[in-house]
Amino acid sequence: MTAARFDVLAIGNAIVDVIARVDDAFLEREGYAKGSMRLIDPARADELYARMGPGREISGGSAANTLAGIAAFGHRCAFIGQVADDQMGAVFAHDIRAMGIAFDVPARDPEPPTGRCLVLVAPDGERTMNTSLGAAHYLPEAAAEPALVESALYLYIEGYMWDPPEPRRAILRAIAAARAANRKVALALSAIFLMDMYRADFLKLIRDGLIDILFCNEDELLALIEASDLDTAIEALAGLVPLLVVTRSEQGALAVKNGRRTSVPAERVAQVVDTTGAGDLFAAGFLAGQVQGRSIEHSLRMGAIAAAEVISHYGARPEAELKALVAHKLG
Amino acid sequence: MTAARFDVLAIGNAIVDVIARVDDAFLEREGYAKGSMRLIDPARADELYARMGPGREISGGSAANTLAGIAAFGHRCAFIGQVADDQMGAVFAHDIRAMGIAFDVPARDPEPPTGRCLVLVAPDGERTMNTSLGAAHYLPEAAAEPALVESALYLYIEGYMWDPPEPRRAILRAIAAARAANRKVALALSAIFLMDMYRADFLKLIRDGLIDILFCNEDELLALIEASDLDTAIEALAGLVPLLVVTRSEQGALAVKNGRRTSVPAERVAQVVDTTGAGDLFAAGFLAGQVQGRSIEHSLRMGAIAAAEVISHYGARPEAELKALVAHKLG
Repeated sequence: MTAARFDVLAIGNAIVDVIARVDDAFLEREGYAKGSMRLIDPARADELYARMGPGREISGGSAANTLAGIAAFGHRCAFIGQVADDQMGAVFAHDIRAMGIAFDVPARDPEPPTGRCLVLVAPDGERTMNTSLGAAHYLPEAAAEPALVESALYLYIEGYMWDPPEPRRAILRAIAAARAANRKVALALSAIFLMDMYRADFLKLIRDGLIDILFCNEDELLALIEASDLDTAIEALAGLVPLLVVTRSEQGALAVKNGRRTSVPAERVAQVVDTTGAGDLFAAGFLAGQVQGRSIEHSLRMGAIAAAEVISHYGARPEAELKALVAHKLG
Repeated sequence: MTAARFDVLAIGNAIVDVIARVDDAFLEREGYAKGSMRLIDPARADELYARMGPGREISGGSAANTLAGIAAFGHRCAFIGQVADDQMGAVFAHDIRAMGIAFDVPARDPEPPTGRCLVLVAPDGERTMNTSLGAAHYLPEAAAEPALVESALYLYIEGYMWDPPEPRRAILRAIAAARAANRKVALALSAIFLMDMYRADFLKLIRDGLIDILFCNEDELLALIEASDLDTAIEALAGLVPLLVVTRSEQGALAVKNGRRTSVPAERVAQVVDTTGAGDLFAAGFLAGQVQGRSIEHSLRMGAIAAAEVISHYGARPEAELKALVAHKLG
């Protein structure tokens, strides 16, 4: 194993979020399940955008948000994702590089445009996401450079990227390179609807021993295992994945490592403004802890603190100095 | 005078703000006077952007912000400004229309791009603005349709628009149409540097009796009159403009109407996050009060409340329901 240039390399959708506040009646009228995420085509995105209130544009993308968090903890990160050669692509590239994250995948043709996610935030802070993947769909397999993968201690994969066929090939190539170089592979399940579509694929990755750390929330875990209670689901997976990390919203989070379960409560938040990115930032805090060689409990608490910070404001990227925040809270 | 379709029509720069937090050392290194606004060319904007931290994009533009505030008070507004046919132009157009503001100026060629303002926000909330006007420079005189101007009770002009030659012709055409239709004309001085460049022009507009309401902050007023104290400056102007409104940051604001001065204190703010738009929203609250036929004092207080709201979060557009906020505070 050669010396690592990066702590974490992530593959994910390059997305700019368009965040607008809505009332619950709007979500009902549109027939949206509050808290859900769905993929929409560009025409549908334009229609919805026309009905949305004024927005604010903030770079997003699940794995990219996680990297932004890890970078805010002071660790070295690199990102693989696809933007288009357009203004939103320039915004995404600027924002991720401004956090010190290496990002070298060239922008592709302006059509389709850079991916965007129309994020509808309800008065209680719960977000409903409508994603038009655009250019992110077309991340080429070649972007998963083995030399780059080998240069990072952890490879972090966003489950959303399993959906489009080209990025899926990039993921498989990256996993192969990571395993060959003895690097750790982390997978985030990302969304329930992916379990309905790709349950067998995800379970195969896990059963083949390709995943070292699995990140999911409780609902995703239940959907993956098709179980109705948490204990059954954890038991089914615990022997298959060395480290399982499950977030449970207000009920905190837990990790299972070598059959041993560790739980932490959720961090208190004065006011939940926008829940977008909570899971992404939990993963960021946890992985930062692992990079630092912290205990599972300490890493879980770092995740809880990072998640609490991101839901206290609009946007899925951290605004506070996470390193200082954790030092203040955990010493 | 025919029945008015709009309460306020504004002419202003169509701008998307790119807001990033900076520390004071960054401003010093760049040699920026904290709190200032300056015009930069696209190359210089790209250079600065590359050195800035991650941003958030929120529609801005001084007069457009004022209209967003007036619309948030429930009044009927229309905007004249120029965007390019690009993604930021689409964002600007969406955001202003989503507030119910009529905006029908067609987007022009993608080059130069839609105007953007790189807003550097210091830890104390003070903003330093770096504006690349782009397409906004090229608002054609024809956009100031007399029929549209006649259809609004108030014409509101952003002083910034006096700088580029084409928009200046649009302003003069709009003022002529407004005066012919017996509509009120409001002018915001916008920035000190404009006084250095166009003092004589602004004074001529005022002396010719073309301006009914003049909005400025204390520094702009002193620069316009080349006076060193507020009383002298007010005295010099009071006879020339029927209604003078002067904002004074933490010291509140005052208005002089027919020689009578009315002052209000600044509204308290729990935490100043980003001062961008404070003056714009003060004008919004004040004008909304005038549209409603409120007293000068009541209108000033509406301005103070709207300004306090906008500096309590990032971005120069209101986030709160201003109508409800004022009803709660002023009854």
